[in-house]
Order: sequence, then structure tokens, then C-alpha cells
Amino acid sequence: MADQPFDLLQRDSQTQARRGRLHTRRGVIETPAFMPVGTQGTVKGMLPEALTEVGAQVILANTYHLFLRPGHELIERLGGLHRFMNWDRPILTDSGGFQVFSLGDLRQIDENGVVFQSHLDGARHLLTPEVSIAVQEALGSDIIMAFDECIPHPATREYTKISTDRSGRWAQRCKLARRDDDALLFGIVQGGMYPDLRQKSAEELVAIGFDGYAIGGLSVGEDADLMYTMMEQTLPHLPATAARYVMGIGTPENLIEAVARGADMFDCVMPTRNARNGVLFTRSGRLSIKQARYREDPGPIDPDCGCMVCRQYSRAYLRHLYQSNEILASVLNTHHNLAYYLDLMAGARHALDNGTFAVYRERFYQQRNRQTDELD
Amino acid sequence: MADQPFDLLQRDSQTQARRGRLHTRRGVIETPAFMPVGTQGTVKGMLPEALTEVGAQVILANTYHLFLRPGHELIERLGGLHRFMNWDRPILTDSGGFQVFSLGDLRQIDENGVVFQSHLDGARHLLTPEVSIAVQEALGSDIIMAFDECIPHPATREYTKISTDRSGRWAQRCKLARRDDDALLFGIVQGGMYPDLRQKSAEELVAIGFDGYAIGGLSVGEDADLMYTMMEQTLPHLPATAARYVMGIGTPENLIEAVARGADMFDCVMPTRNARNGVLFTRSGRLSIKQARYREDPGPIDPDCGCMVCRQYSRAYLRHLYQSNEILASVLNTHHNLAYYLDLMAGARHALDNGTFAVYRERFYQQRNRQTDELD
Repeated sequence: MADQPFDLLQRDSQTQARRGRLHTRRGVIETPAFMPVGTQGTVKGMLPEALTEVGAQVILANTYHLFLRPGHELIERLGGLHRFMNWDRPILTDSGGFQVFSLGDLRQIDENGVVFQSHLDGARHLLTPEVSIAVQEALGSDIIMAFDECIPHPATREYTKISTDRSGRWAQRCKLARRDDDALLFGIVQGGMYPDLRQKSAEELVAIGFDGYAIGGLSVGEDADLMYTMMEQTLPHLPATAARYVMGIGTPENLIEAVARGADMFDCVMPTRNARNGVLFTRSGRLSIKQARYREDPGPIDPDCGCMVCRQYSRAYLRHLYQSNEILASVLNTHHNLAYYLDLMAGARHALDNGTFAVYRERFYQQRNRQTDELD
Repeated sequence: MADQPFDLLQRDSQTQARRGRLHTRRGVIETPAFMPVGTQGTVKGMLPEALTEVGAQVILANTYHLFLRPGHELIERLGGLHRFMNWDRPILTDSGGFQVFSLGDLRQIDENGVVFQSHLDGARHLLTPEVSIAVQEALGSDIIMAFDECIPHPATREYTKISTDRSGRWAQRCKLARRDDDALLFGIVQGGMYPDLRQKSAEELVAIGFDGYAIGGLSVGEDADLMYTMMEQTLPHLPATAARYVMGIGTPENLIEAVARGADMFDCVMPTRNARNGVLFTRSGRLSIKQARYREDPGPIDPDCGCMVCRQYSRAYLRHLYQSNEILASVLNTHHNLAYYLDLMAGARHALDNGTFAVYRERFYQQRNRQTDELD
């Protein structure tokens, strides 16, 4: 898109937090925003109507998975991913890089791209910047991510530099490869845990020019303090007038802290995956629904939550469903956890609108310490 | 209930089919009616809102399962099964007998009742007519079933007589054991595949007097013709002014044929269990969604179906979800199959209202022969 697609609406006076609005061809995304993850063309257990109900503005789809099954060309022939999965709001697609690089011995990397073997059937495939963009465009993505390497942690400075430089060249190729000018294209800052490499990566991407910028390679095993430090070392090198997306995080605390440091967008499987394992997020802390203490508990998951699940179902019922391995356990738990994450961001937006984000952050921690189950 | 709870609204002129209305304390059930099965306090994969959307008027809950987990007393303390599972329409509970007798070596039967071992933890429990009624009343059931033995097929005449006579004595004990006079109590005709024993069982139950009558012990392995014959031999011995429930059937054909023979109510796991295995019901026949022929099929499951799934999702997408083992596969497939079964009964009611049931039945078979996938 020719114009800057991001409006910076408010800056917090006490932190780096920002209230913004990202314009896409399928509508606006009010930021800070959390994006539920829909790996295989579905957010596990959630009907699109339910995603709308909990306030999802945009979802993330995984290019790697859809490339392998059912195939991006099939989805394109059927009218694109939005029609395929019956979701008419924005979709952000990752580049496929993260999954491919996670394959370990099943992949080989060189300047051109990555040859990898499918986790489904072992078939060999080639993923390059050009292929990644073409696949994302075939899916009909509204926000396309540049193809990059997500560097494992820990990594040597030498490897981090080689990889980050290559990701920079790939970013340039991604920009050249784009055909769908109505979709947004985001660059991804790498640089591992080396602040100067992060700065260099950010500056190179800004020089190329993208519709938004992501920070990749975080939440890869480093502790939270180091992750926050890397955000602090990277975000100032990105334009304040562009959307900033911290990929793959995180816990509710991570999100609040990333917002306070000036990040606008997030995605993570944590609320959905935890839900399927019976771990539920509440304003007081985490709750493991299988615990015997909830056997006869008539209360909702979170008394301060207004979601469909908390309005209608008891902890006792949710524990029964979980213990009985019922489909509805995953459906209801996922619904609540996503409502929690999306409410957390809606609350942050509201606080930023009113200049009370610092109070919101403080209150978040005060409530949170009331109860957290030991999780096994 | 003192008054007869069933209104016989219409009789078909060409068949024995009837249009009726069963009054329960939680509302009326228009018959013929199919009851989705919610074994463990949930119809697998269906939110209560979705059950209402597809037109479920009443659901069946399994006493055996809820007795063992989470326990009827726990459910009672939490306000009953309706509140527990967030369903405010009628619930019919089975007696627990069918599951207990299916346990084989894990159960011992005598005049008093059945001692059995839990399939969950092997713990020993006693189920008697009195216990069954108490459990169903604790759950808050609106239609309580008498405790009986579902006789396996084939069975000798000698055993069938012994068992049916005992079930008759148990039916009497059930009637004496009831405390909740606002719930309906149904007796169950047994008698195996012996018409004279069926008649005797029916007459004994009518002499005791119940709010409605069920035919049990069908769809236990006999062929469809024998099943229909047994219905024909039994239904005339039940009062035309009472609701008649044929338990545990069946295929769409079974339902149409049972309606034509004068049955009013049905339950079966077929639509829900088949859905989870990717077998979908359509007006043209069955469809196995995993087949490669549907890989790129943009059409709905059934072009003549107006359900939420058929309005919004392609066979290609449903195949993708099934192949990807996604939760939404079970959710959407179950939604459609229940919509199909409930529409089939709604269509029968409509035809009976208009005196066109014979045409409806004929058209059902004409459409049905268009396509049926070979199921593996």
C-alpha cells in the first residue's frame, strides 16, 4: 500500500505504550491487538462466529501447514483462505520460516532458501522468499510476513550475524516478489540476543521500507528479562509511525510488558493450546481445571469475566467435561482463554484512550497475584 | 402427572403415522421427534445454542455415565442436570440398564437388581429399579425411563420370558419408587423377538399405567425387517393416546419406517457418532467426507440442507478439517448430521399436518437412492 497504513492515535505519558489503528483491505485492527492462531485454517475449537464474539479482529494462519495441506493452490482455486474457512476479517500469514527452521535435520538452508521434508509425508519441498510470498498471496493474506530465519537460542554471534544478514537479503527479495499491492507486507527484525545486530537489522529493513515491522526470534527459550531487554533495544529503531508486531509471545504478563515497551501486535498459541490442556487464564492467575478442588465448584472460571462460558458454565461442569475428554471441554476452554486475552488487549486500548495505562498495568499485577494454581 | 400428557393431533390416512404433542414440565415436544444423545452431560461437540439452532426439542442423557461421573448427587447439589449443562428444554434420561447389561462379565443380575463394576475404575455398584429412579430424579430428568433389562439378540424364548417378566416386576417397583410427580415416567416393553411376549409385556405395562411407553430391545443386531415386524406386533398393544418411544434407533430409513408404523419418539447415537467418523447424512444418501473425491469440492454437504454448515462451508473445507484431525471437523459434522435428523422429523411432522406423509415417505426414498458412498 502506498500510504502509511498505521495511525498512531495516542502515546502513553508514562510508558512507551501506544494506541493505534492498522488499516487493511478487510478492515481496521485497533491496537494493541492479540491475534488468535489458526494454524490449519481454523482456530482450534472456535467457530468464526465465536471468534467474532470474543472480539478477534484478525487471526494468524500458518503458511507452512496450509502449503502442505490442503495446499495453497487448492485454497486459491476455492476462492482463498477467507472463503475456505468462512472468516471475513483480516488474516495475517506467517512466512512458513519458523516451522521450516524448527524441522532440524529435515531441512537444509542456503542463500536461495530452504529445502525441507514435510512432517506429514516426508516429501521434499523448497521454500524461498519468492515462494513464501507467492503462497501467502495465493492464500489471500491481508498481512504478509517476509521470509526469514528465526534464530534458535542460544546462538553464537557469528551465526547470528550470518543468518540476520541473509534474512535481510531475503527481506529485499520478498519486497521485490510481492504482486498483491493491496495486502500489507511486514519485515521481520532478527539479530538474536545481540542488540547491535538487532539495530542493524531494523535499520536495514526500514531502509527497504515495509508496511509494518515485526520483531522475530523472541520467546525462543530466553528468560523474560532478556526478552524485554531485546524489545527495548529494538523498538526504538523502528518508525513510530508504523505498526510493530512482536511475534510468538506470550503470557499475559509478556503482552502487558510488550505493550508498555511500544509493541502493537501479538500472536501466540498459549491461550488456545493451554485451553486444550485444561489450563485457564483468569484475572487472578492461572487455573488448572482438572484439579479436584474444582470438582463441585459452582462458580465461573473467572468471576470478573463476561464471556459466554463464564456467564453460563461452572468450574464443576468444565472439570467434568475435561475429565470426560469431551469435545466441549476444548471448545469452552478455548473460548474463555481467547476472551481473556482479547479482553486484556481491549482493556489496554481503553486505558490508553483514557491515559490510564500505567494504572491498568499496576492493577493487572495486583489482581494477578491472588491465585495461581501449581501446574503439573 | 395425573392428566394424559400426550395430545394425538393427527392420524395419517394411509399409514399408522401420528402427529402428536407431548407435554413436559419444561415445555412441549412436537412428535414425531428425534432426541440427540448427550451421554455425559453434553451432546458431543454441540453447544446448547447449536442444539436449539438445529431444532432439538429434547435431549437424552445417560444415567449410567452420569451416575459414575461426576455423580448424580453432585449434579443435584449443583442444581440439577439442566443447570449443570446449560440446557433448559426437556431432558429424557435412560434408566442405566442398557449400559449395565452391556458390561457382560462385569455385572450380575438377580431379582433385586444388578451389581456391576464401573468401566472407569472397576468399583462395584448396585443398580435397582429404586436406585435408577432416584438417580434420574436427582438429575432432574423430565422424562424418566423405567429400569429394565435390554435382552441381547438372539435370546432363547425361555430366557426372554424370564427377563421380560422380571422387567415387568421392576416396572411396577419403578412406579412405586417415583417421588417427582412432575416428571413423566415411561414404561418399556421388552419381549425380545417373540410377538406374544411383546404383547404380554405391553399389556402388563398398560395395566400398571405409565405416562408414555417405550419399545426397548430393538436394533440389537436383528435385521431391519424383523425390527419392523416387532414394531408392528407391539405398537397396536399400546394406547393410541400415549406417546410411544422406540429406543435406540436408527438410520434415517428406520425412523421413517417407525413413524409409518405409529412411533413418536426416537434416540440414537448414529448422527453424532457417524459425524465424528466423517460420515455425513444427506437427502441423497451417505457421504464419507474423507474420500479424495471431495478434495476440491466447493459445494455444501447437502445442497438441499439449510443448516449453518451447509450455508457456509464446502465439502473441501470439511474434508481438510477431517484429514487434519481438527476439533471443528467434529463440531461442524455433528451440527449438520443433527440438523439432517431433526429436519427429517420436522418434515414428517409437516407432512402429517398436511395429510401428505405417504408422499413424504416416497420422496424420501426417491431422493435417497441418488448417491451413497461406499463406507469403509
